[in-house]
Amino acid sequence: MASTMRAAVLPEPGKPLEIREVPIPEPLTNEMLIKVLYAGINHRDVWIQKGLYPGIRKGVILGSDCVGIVEKVGSEVDSAWIGKKVIVNPGIDWGPRREVQSSSFHILGNPTNGTFAEYVVVPAENVYQPPLHLSDEEAAALPLAGVTAYRALFYRGKVKEGETVLITGIGGGVALMALKMATTVTDKIIVTSSSREKIERAIELGASDGFFYTQEDWHKQLASKWGGVDVVIDGASGPNIAKIIDILNPAGRLVIYGQTAGRVEQLSTAKVFWRHLNILGSTMGSPSDFEEMLELWNTHKLKPVIDRLYSLDEINKAFEWMDNAKQFGKIVIKV
Amino acid sequence: MASTMRAAVLPEPGKPLEIREVPIPEPLTNEMLIKVLYAGINHRDVWIQKGLYPGIRKGVILGSDCVGIVEKVGSEVDSAWIGKKVIVNPGIDWGPRREVQSSSFHILGNPTNGTFAEYVVVPAENVYQPPLHLSDEEAAALPLAGVTAYRALFYRGKVKEGETVLITGIGGGVALMALKMATTVTDKIIVTSSSREKIERAIELGASDGFFYTQEDWHKQLASKWGGVDVVIDGASGPNIAKIIDILNPAGRLVIYGQTAGRVEQLSTAKVFWRHLNILGSTMGSPSDFEEMLELWNTHKLKPVIDRLYSLDEINKAFEWMDNAKQFGKIVIKV
Repeated sequence: MASTMRAAVLPEPGKPLEIREVPIPEPLTNEMLIKVLYAGINHRDVWIQKGLYPGIRKGVILGSDCVGIVEKVGSEVDSAWIGKKVIVNPGIDWGPRREVQSSSFHILGNPTNGTFAEYVVVPAENVYQPPLHLSDEEAAALPLAGVTAYRALFYRGKVKEGETVLITGIGGGVALMALKMATTVTDKIIVTSSSREKIERAIELGASDGFFYTQEDWHKQLASKWGGVDVVIDGASGPNIAKIIDILNPAGRLVIYGQTAGRVEQLSTAKVFWRHLNILGSTMGSPSDFEEMLELWNTHKLKPVIDRLYSLDEINKAFEWMDNAKQFGKIVIKV
Repeated sequence: MASTMRAAVLPEPGKPLEIREVPIPEPLTNEMLIKVLYAGINHRDVWIQKGLYPGIRKGVILGSDCVGIVEKVGSEVDSAWIGKKVIVNPGIDWGPRREVQSSSFHILGNPTNGTFAEYVVVPAENVYQPPLHLSDEEAAALPLAGVTAYRALFYRGKVKEGETVLITGIGGGVALMALKMATTVTDKIIVTSSSREKIERAIELGASDGFFYTQEDWHKQLASKWGGVDVVIDGASGPNIAKIIDILNPAGRLVIYGQTAGRVEQLSTAKVFWRHLNILGSTMGSPSDFEEMLELWNTHKLKPVIDRLYSLDEINKAFEWMDNAKQFGKIVIKV
């Protein structure tokens, strides 16, 4: 085994990634060294690269998701893992409360080195067998977006059999994972997008209907056709939140996992209390969320939507593609 | 028994109440006729009187809360109730889901005739034995504010032993009921008010500290002294919601039961999702909430705060007093 590896390093926030030869890391006693086969890209990686995240470490290797082969294990780790193919839960040190992460929680790929490299070191407790029905590149697309969508939909949104689910901004990784997983409990799934093509593709994947959030009255169109919605999975926030509140059914749950559309400017709470609504924040997920997510994908033989595959050398092109928000599904790097 | 009774009738929205002689109502088969001893006033009554509520029936007898004596029962009701002193749950036809009321739910005192009268008819299932440690006027203060506060704090806010609770706008009926009930689970209760006197009185009743929400940085003062809060009970909404979000601890719960201060403005959702916060609407309560509330008051021998007692003839003065928001505790009518 060589002593150096190729890795996509962020020289400093705002600069493009650089492919460099760096030392292969050594696993600590409770860690594993994994030879990366495929690594999924998340919006988080692009935001860190652009410097839009707090606490960015110069020279960090980005990347949270991967599938790979265990190459070496620390002294406290069962050596039977060596040579096994694994998927990695990128959430490290979530802590004991399922409701919320501990203050030591962090995500693989900043400040610790991540998966856009030939090798990565991770805690042994974060390593799982990948779903057997998935190809390596499909499994590599799953971790962060999958756990985020699972927690939002099931642990936070508590979606129940036959409920009406609205997923906003379909096309993004989390939104499409949520769509896939929602099909296991309901056939009433509605999506929004600014793109007709994305709505059509979502309908092919199991959505029942779609609306253009760019139209002022999209929520009224939805309500007149579907009545209302029970669970909403939203990564945008912004002015549409007030419209979503308008169409939430009594006791409905709006789960927010991002604010790509900015602040909520004005919100009347009258409907929130009259209808006993729930506005619930969610980000990433706990080990239990990750395990239950894997189980759901295994049980229902779900497959993630892969948008494009790039090589490690093309990583800056892959970041640009994601930044344009043109993608429909996950972008994966073949290492 | 006479065939007419005195009652405070709303001739039309916006007009003062008029004391009139009206026929004593007859209970239906599943109802009871109750001779009212004391009737509590709620903000709802004042809002209906001012015409600030939807669906106001001209000529309605207002009033949701009462303690009285069962005078007569319908044919399906056990006649052993006759002569018993009772407290009334004013929420009628809540329906089968504890999470939210059914569409037939309504509150005694509009559109059905309420408790500001010598007699009132209510469904037998809404009648309970009053807590034995309370005087009649104290028990009459309990129902609507008590069930609203109970549901907000326990069923929605899920307050746990030792958590830090913030109750905004102390002095109102629901806020003071929440303060009393919160003392049964924690000694870290913080209140806000615009009045120094109300804060001082809240501290006498068991609050640990108070802040003036009229000061721009009240939430920063609170955070620097107490760290943050786990559960917030708020009936105001408005611009302070963004400040409350700022000081909510991870996995914290903000329960909103009103919007006396208007819409929420400029809310960043970043803290909502990073901290897995919960913004929960709540109004009034289910039969289970009412029963558990009575049990809590019985177990802990809690006493509500009574602000003033008025006679039925003085009801318009009582309404004015409540409308001025000068009160600290419940206003009760002796019928």
